[in-house]
Amino acid sequence: MQKYQAIREAAYEANMQLPALGLVLFTFGNVSAADRDAGVFAIKPSGVPYAELTPAKMVIVDFDGKVVDGELRPSSDTLTHAVLYKHWKEIGGIVHTHSTYATAWAQSQRSIPIYGTTHADHNTLDIPCAAPMADELIAGDYEYQTGFQIMNTLAEQQLSYQEIEMILVGNHAPFTWGSTPAKAVYNSAVLEEIAKMAYLTESINFRAPRLKDSLIKKHYERKHGPNSYYGQ
Amino acid sequence: MQKYQAIREAAYEANMQLPALGLVLFTFGNVSAADRDAGVFAIKPSGVPYAELTPAKMVIVDFDGKVVDGELRPSSDTLTHAVLYKHWKEIGGIVHTHSTYATAWAQSQRSIPIYGTTHADHNTLDIPCAAPMADELIAGDYEYQTGFQIMNTLAEQQLSYQEIEMILVGNHAPFTWGSTPAKAVYNSAVLEEIAKMAYLTESINFRAPRLKDSLIKKHYERKHGPNSYYGQ
Amino acid sequence: MQKYQAIREAAYEANMQLPALGLVLFTFGNVSAADRDAGVFAIKPSGVPYAELTPAKMVIVDFDGKVVDGELRPSSDTLTHAVLYKHWKEIGGIVHTHSTYATAWAQSQRSIPIYGTTHADHNTLDIPCAAPMADELIAGDYEYQTGFQIMNTLAEQQLSYQEIEMILVGNHAPFTWGSTPAKAVYNSAVLEEIAKMAYLTESINFRAPRLKDSLIKKHYERKHGPNSYYGQ
Amino acid sequence: MQKYQAIREAAYEANMQLPALGLVLFTFGNVSAADRDAGVFAIKPSGVPYAELTPAKMVIVDFDGKVVDGELRPSSDTLTHAVLYKHWKEIGGIVHTHSTYATAWAQSQRSIPIYGTTHADHNTLDIPCAAPMADELIAGDYEYQTGFQIMNTLAEQQLSYQEIEMILVGNHAPFTWGSTPAKAVYNSAVLEEIAKMAYLTESINFRAPRLKDSLIKKHYERKHGPNSYYGQ
Repeated sequence: MQKYQAIREAAYEANMQLPALGLVLFTFGNVSAADRDAGVFAIKPSGVPYAELTPAKMVIVDFDGKVVDGELRPSSDTLTHAVLYKHWKEIGGIVHTHSTYATAWAQSQRSIPIYGTTHADHNTLDIPCAAPMADELIAGDYEYQTGFQIMNTLAEQQLSYQEIEMILVGNHAPFTWGSTPAKAVYNSAVLEEIAKMAYLTESINFRAPRLKDSLIKKHYERKHGPNSYYGQ
Repeated sequence: MQKYQAIREAAYEANMQLPALGLVLFTFGNVSAADRDAGVFAIKPSGVPYAELTPAKMVIVDFDGKVVDGELRPSSDTLTHAVLYKHWKEIGGIVHTHSTYATAWAQSQRSIPIYGTTHADHNTLDIPCAAPMADELIAGDYEYQTGFQIMNTLAEQQLSYQEIEMILVGNHAPFTWGSTPAKAVYNSAVLEEIAKMAYLTESINFRAPRLKDSLIKKHYERKHGPNSYYGQ
Repeated sequence: MQKYQAIREAAYEANMQLPALGLVLFTFGNVSAADRDAGVFAIKPSGVPYAELTPAKMVIVDFDGKVVDGELRPSSDTLTHAVLYKHWKEIGGIVHTHSTYATAWAQSQRSIPIYGTTHADHNTLDIPCAAPMADELIAGDYEYQTGFQIMNTLAEQQLSYQEIEMILVGNHAPFTWGSTPAKAVYNSAVLEEIAKMAYLTESINFRAPRLKDSLIKKHYERKHGPNSYYGQ
Repeated sequence: MQKYQAIREAAYEANMQLPALGLVLFTFGNVSAADRDAGVFAIKPSGVPYAELTPAKMVIVDFDGKVVDGELRPSSDTLTHAVLYKHWKEIGGIVHTHSTYATAWAQSQRSIPIYGTTHADHNTLDIPCAAPMADELIAGDYEYQTGFQIMNTLAEQQLSYQEIEMILVGNHAPFTWGSTPAKAVYNSAVLEEIAKMAYLTESINFRAPRLKDSLIKKHYERKHGPNSYYGQ
């Protein structure tokens, strides 16, 4: 068995879900899977079509972004993944896509307001949109700084990465994460659906109110609270 | 043969239609099928992916919401189904989805105006949007109260559940019903299409008029009136 | 071989194209195929799902709307087809759908402006939207009058049915026709695409100008003029 | 082996990608593949459905638009392809489609603003929209003049065909090109996605700002600059 086989397979399976769920065109996305004991993650190789992926082609990278194993060059977004794994000890998977509706919100530089229970079933807050970085950071170690941009945006809003598992990077596109790569992919699909519904909601009623607090609390807690009764 | 086999299979088949018709993402929906003689209904287990469903996994619940048979936990929306079955003696199936366009109207807190014959072929009225519940009801027995919220909205508009087999729950999502679970699923797909057409109609002409009464009457009656001539 | 076999098969094949092209939900559409020598047409039976259709189930009707052969009830729109076949001697097929974007324009009670060459490749004119009928006509022989409503709208705009093979019936949905049922189905798919593009065009630029005459003429004539050079 | 076999197959494969990628309805598009040594290109025959295409049916044309080999009539847009191959020495493939969102922008007569990194990953500029031609050029050798219209639009904006591999022809539809026919098809799919995202971006925030220069530069250079690190 190849080394790091478990995260290779988890990353492979999760990457293949992106085209299956309609979240990527061509190679516009990537998923990684972390092995906390080994201090590494497996990530999609850069620019390789999904149809050509195999677990063996996943690239193994440590939490400082150094390639540990694999013959291919890792995703160009690898340093963003590395920064988040290094600082967020509990996450096991990260996804980046350019999914259509979430990306349109990112390009609009607006957070996605919480308009309904589909949103509240997953988050209690507007989905934040990180402001574009300062020019000197962009010109420097861009992908590395993107990781800090994400962390800083959560910090400014006093949010933990456990409270909200998705973010829009302004002018760019969404990132999501979770305890496993499969959960992070799930979050990407949910975000895309929430983004589409919010766009339609504003088109139908440009004065649509945010969801009221009691409903946010109820829907979030029935799925995620101490007395949750959703699922098995 | 397993007990309640007929409603298990009817609920299973109807649930499987939701992803086939594009009405659900992941597990965001559920269908139930009632056995009026036995005073119970079969409903989707909570949070189980459609691909893993079987008739045997359906949960049997009575009209007070008590689980009668089945090892899994029923849908978190079970009490809403129970309330409606208990009060509406003629219905045999209920569907809840978060289908994209119908949910966007629900989030917009607007009823869907009757703009054309596609709508009139199924209803003679705007599709009502129930107002969000009072905070104390939300904090209490939420799903149970959602059933009453639906019934009260129809009552306020002097509508019977036979006249209109679909409703939007404000800020939340649609519910539909019918004489059978298959008919209730049909109603969910029709509602989603009507919701999309109404959104586009307002985008194309923000002063689009409601359908006039003579056309509403004609189209509804050719399908549902005493001298109907649609179908076999 | 069954009587009227050729038009039974032509109508069957054309009807089956409607779901394949995404133009119908459930049974919301119908195609007919005419046999000019026999003075009859074959049309979809009313309310029968596409998956259950066969050539033998097509209903044979004369140009006065009288059923000549077949055990099922014909489409509820049969009289509209009959009127058009009776008055338009050169057409061999008619299609009625509730395709999403064309129906939204019909509900908006607006003609579709000619905004580009995709439109001009098929028509030189805005696609007309017939005004809703007078109430007494609706209450009377509605489908029969719909045929005259279509003919009158073309007459008022001094158009022949050869110049434009598609129309929107206001508040209702589109009808298309052509020399064969296959051509009429093609026209329905083209109309749906033109309707979607025109909606998007106005959303992107609400002052988008109509296509200028020289481009209308050029594109139409390269496909349909005496010196056409499109196709084989 | 048939003469010009390599470009016949390349053109065939690339044409078949258009329906697979959802970029064409019926026959509304065409791809060509150039053989620079032989001074010819292979192009789709006019009006032939994609399902009936074969490499042998591709038509071989020289850079003056003269048919060199093949029994079918070439695409009605052949002269546009010929002009571009004649003047742009480095391109190996050209695509023309009427893809929905890109065509809507063309009909709107607006260039597509650069709103995000999905766009900047491929171009550093707004995607230009060529103004409609003068009437006398349209009435004359229309497709030939369309080639010059495209070249002139780039020239006016001081762009080379290597800097930007896509354009909208006002009131008409997009053209894309590239070093190979496969690259040109890729560009058509990317353009369609960019067009859809830009439409949504303006709908969500009608004051959405263009992407700032530092981000344009960074994203373009990480894919295409001298120190690019995208891909293998």
